[in-house]
This record gives sequence, structure tokens and C-alpha cells, in this order.
Amino acid sequence: MPSEKIQRAAVVGAGAWGTTFAQVLCDAGLEVLLWGRDPKLIETINEVHTSKYLSGIVLPENLRATSDISQVLEFSPQMLVVAIPSSAIEQALLPLAGQVSKLEIVSLVKGLKNGHFMSELIAHTLQVPQANVTVISGPNLAGEIAARQPAATVVANQEIERAQRVAEACDAGYFRPYISTDVIGCEIGGVAKNVIALAVGAATGMGLGKNTQSTLITRGLAEITRLGLALGANGETFLGLAGIGDLTTTCSSQLSRNFTFGENIGKGLSVQQALGASRGVAEGVNSCDHVLALAKENGVDMPITEAVVDVVHNNHSAAQMGERLLGRPRKMDGVEIQLA
Amino acid sequence: MPSEKIQRAAVVGAGAWGTTFAQVLCDAGLEVLLWGRDPKLIETINEVHTSKYLSGIVLPENLRATSDISQVLEFSPQMLVVAIPSSAIEQALLPLAGQVSKLEIVSLVKGLKNGHFMSELIAHTLQVPQANVTVISGPNLAGEIAARQPAATVVANQEIERAQRVAEACDAGYFRPYISTDVIGCEIGGVAKNVIALAVGAATGMGLGKNTQSTLITRGLAEITRLGLALGANGETFLGLAGIGDLTTTCSSQLSRNFTFGENIGKGLSVQQALGASRGVAEGVNSCDHVLALAKENGVDMPITEAVVDVVHNNHSAAQMGERLLGRPRKMDGVEIQLA
Repeated sequence: MPSEKIQRAAVVGAGAWGTTFAQVLCDAGLEVLLWGRDPKLIETINEVHTSKYLSGIVLPENLRATSDISQVLEFSPQMLVVAIPSSAIEQALLPLAGQVSKLEIVSLVKGLKNGHFMSELIAHTLQVPQANVTVISGPNLAGEIAARQPAATVVANQEIERAQRVAEACDAGYFRPYISTDVIGCEIGGVAKNVIALAVGAATGMGLGKNTQSTLITRGLAEITRLGLALGANGETFLGLAGIGDLTTTCSSQLSRNFTFGENIGKGLSVQQALGASRGVAEGVNSCDHVLALAKENGVDMPITEAVVDVVHNNHSAAQMGERLLGRPRKMDGVEIQLA
Repeated sequence: MPSEKIQRAAVVGAGAWGTTFAQVLCDAGLEVLLWGRDPKLIETINEVHTSKYLSGIVLPENLRATSDISQVLEFSPQMLVVAIPSSAIEQALLPLAGQVSKLEIVSLVKGLKNGHFMSELIAHTLQVPQANVTVISGPNLAGEIAARQPAATVVANQEIERAQRVAEACDAGYFRPYISTDVIGCEIGGVAKNVIALAVGAATGMGLGKNTQSTLITRGLAEITRLGLALGANGETFLGLAGIGDLTTTCSSQLSRNFTFGENIGKGLSVQQALGASRGVAEGVNSCDHVLALAKENGVDMPITEAVVDVVHNNHSAAQMGERLLGRPRKMDGVEIQLA
């Protein structure tokens, strides 16, 4: 593993989060190249220093962007940041496969497909060892970070020196990285929170208040933690920024597509109607059954996730979901298995 | 310990939470007597079935209220619920001292004074063993529970049979008790959350968004957990309803006096001005230095609490608080000591 300071980084994906992260890296003193598929978007970034994904933000003048993926390798970065939707990873990264084994790879992508998290998919596609991939996750709404409001995040790699190196590269003062070796915990938190946000949105859409929302967040965190512990994650991760931090942000934000999808279900819309009303895909809709399948394989009880799956796939109403969750037998508080 | 089912309960304190809890007990099928100091308030509860503390709520017709404390003993309850401000406990409970040792005592009060939590103060004042006192804590905004919206809570007693017995008595369907043996953890959560809510309010008053709020909530939970573990609490409690559940509710509610006090500080008001603008006392203002003193005695680092103490007692501005918290050296994510 190379140990010199990272000075050049390429960011693949020019959506809200990729562009914001590119700005963070510029502010941290790096030279940065941002790749995006859409030439018009790229031109605006290069010439006017704005993006349609970040309204009101003027991007750093030294942020360079390109729509030509071959320029990413020519730029010879020491770090490659992946910030594209999970469904587009294989297609977008294939041109880089086999040529980036000396780079720190950073995943900003959250997703789960057939039991595989995104760090695995990225490592597999790029043909690099999994240890090369560092995961970044936390309470990180792009628009607020782009506005340089203070936020913290978790930088996780099973090799702590790599996590340190990446954290140093993205420490921009207002963006404060904490380090961790619990990659799987961070990835589980990033995926499962979307399912819980959908349930919290549904309760909100039904007109229920803060108590119900906080109860769903808390019991949601308990079931995420149970799954995490079963998969070898560290219990503390769920108490941290990539656990409860990311979960509370997602569950309290009208900007979250998952929350909004759930809210529409709670107001009485059908799944089809709620899908139609959504700007883009609510990740929780796609991943809820993958999360539940993983839980079942590992003998983990996830009642909220199960109720969400029944709403999304089995025509249950939000009211039925509520009755089910309140009707369970009385339990001990806590996650129901011992934290490590 | 008596083991028959609880059928008669007295609630001491007719504020919003005491009155709401009396309604919960009625709904759970108990006979309930509510005591309050103010004869006019009591008359309205008995005759019109409303309370000025719970707007829009019609209370159960079978809820009886009195302003005569001697009637509490004449009513011969099996359970005595304490729901008065921490500062009034000794005066209000003294007439009952030495006469309630056969009753389950339940504390709804949150507070810390000179290293003593409320269950200790209540047991001491009533002259009963500490084990007789069960603590109830959770994401429980009174107004929402009074409206019979679903909520969950933690019922904690070091003797699990007592916790079970109290939980059964207050299980009203919409109010869902979880049981715990971690009394100290629940009490710490209930006190320390008010200090963190003040910090989150200050950030919000400065115009900062969800990322900053969630980061403060998460790092606040980490420092509350550190304190709890040092005092012998169970780490899981802070992942639960009396930990993160209560904390997120308090930190997201414009109804919280602590949040509002902080918000006013964040907008530039002085401590005196913010105190003047507050409807009633913000508990975090009173307890922040007691929490910090307890932390220092136990060698626990609580940077957010320390920053709040400096705002409340040492004329620091909200902006200084922010700079301080962002300027700390890079850390590992998590609570920084191993969970039990």
C-alpha cells in the first residue's frame, strides 16, 4: 500500500453527492477531476461552476470536469471515488477495470443486491482486492455539505492505515471524517436506513407525530443492529455516524425519496401511485426485499423491514403495518442479542 | 414484593405528563386518582374532563382528581406515580413519607442534582428502598400520547418482576412498554438528552441543517453512552427508547424548551434574554453543570456538554461552541470505550 499523501483524486459520478464530494476534496487542497456522463452538465461545471443538482452553489474554480472516462486514467489520480447509482456501477467502471490496483478506491454508493454490498461489487468490477475499497457513510445530505455547513462522516476500511489516508485527503474543516475499520457495518447502515425511512414516512403520512417517528427510528436501529451483528459488524457502528447519524438524517428529511414515498403510502396512495409521484427511485423500495432475504438467511428478526416489504410487494396498507407493529408481544428494550 | 395485578393507581402531579399518564392507566383498565396542587385545575378535570395542559383532549370520565394529598392514601392505591418537577419533589411527597412501602413507586421525573438521580431522591423522600422505584422513560411527548397516538416507552427496575408488573399496568395498546433492568441508564439518558437538545437547538438557530443536527445527536449519544458505561449502565440502553429514542424526539421538537432555548442562543440572544423568552424552565440549563461535574468525577470526556456549560455559564457564543467542536483532533467513530 502506498503511503504518501494523496494529492490527486478522480470522482466518477457528477450527481449531487459526487459533485459535492469533489468540492470537499478541492477544499481539502487536492487536485480533482470529476467525471460525469452528460457533456452539457460537465460543460456547465467547467465554465459556469454550477450544477443543476446543487442549486445556489458556486463550485470551486479549480474543479475540472470531463465526460470522457479515458481522461480519468490520464489524470493519474492516487484516489478514485465512486459516486454513481448502484445500478450503473458495472457499466460505468468497466473501462477502468484492471488499471487502478495502485489507487485508493472510495465508495460513496449505498446498495445491496442478492446479498452483495457495493464495496464488493466495486472491487469485483474494478478487479482490485476488497481491501483497496474504502467506504464513506454518514449523515451527509449533499446540499448542506455543498453549502459548507459542518458535517461529520465515517471513513471505513478493514486496514486502518488506508482509512487514515483517505480521511486525511477529505478533511476539509467543515467536513469532519471519523475513522473506522467496520466496512460491513457502515454498508448495512447505509442500505437498511432507507427501509426504515420508508416506514417513518408512512407513519408521518398517517398524521402520527414525533413519538411514533422516534419509536420507529429506535426499533429500526435495533433491527439493523441485530442484522449487523449477525453479519460480523461492530455494534458500536450503529451507535455512530453511519448508524443512528445517517438514519436520523434520512428519517427527518423531506428531501429523502424514501421518506416521501412512505409519506405518500401513509396518505393512502397505492404503491404504483407513490412510485409515479417520486422524483427518481426510492432506494428502500428496491432494497427492502434484499435486506429481508439477508435477514432471513441469517435468522434475524426484522419486523419493521418485513412490514415494509408487505406494503411494497404484498398490497398491505400503512394502517395494517401499524397494527402489526403494535400487536407484537411485550419485549425487553434493546437489540435482543449482546453487543460484541 | 406483592405480585397481584395492579388495579388502583395514584398519580401525583397534574401537569401535562402526569395527566396523560393517568389517562393511559385509565385506558389500561385501572382505577386512577390524580393529585394536583391547583384546586381550579382539579375541578376542571373532574367536571369538564379537560386540562389547560392538554389542549384539544377530552380526558376519561372515570379519571378522578383531587387537590388533597391525604386522599391519595385513603384511595389505597397499589401503585404511586410521581410526575412533578424535580425541584418540587421533596415538598410534595413529604406527607406520604413512611406510608407507601408496600406500593410500586413509579418515577416519571427526569433530573440530576449533586450526583443524585430522581429515583434516589424519591426513594429517600418517601423512605422506601430504591428497588421499590420503577423508572419510566422514552420518546414520550405528552400531547401525542394524550391524543392516543402510538408510542413506546421503557419501564426499568433492577428487579425484573417489578418492571413486568408496572409494564402490565400501563400497557394501553397505543402506549407500548418495553422492560429493562437498567435504571441508571434510563435516568442518565433522560437528563443528558436535554443538554444535547440545547446544542442542537443552537446549531439550528445558527441556520445549520440536518447533517449538523444529526452529527450533534450522534456524537451527543456517544458522550452520554460513555458517561453511562462509566456509571455502570448497560450500553444497549442508549441504543434504545430511553437513549436514542428520547434524544431524537427532544432534539427534533419545537415543543422542547431546551431546543428552543438553544435556538434563541443560536440566533444571537444572550443567556438572560433566552431565559426571559422561555415558557418555563429549560431543564438542560439547570442540569448541564451537574452532568459535567459527574462526568469529570468519573474521568469521562463530554465535549458537547462542556461546550454547552461554557455557553450557559461562561458567556461563550454559539459560534464559539461550533468552532470548538469542529476543531478537535480526528477520532475513531464510536463511543471510544468498549460496550459491555
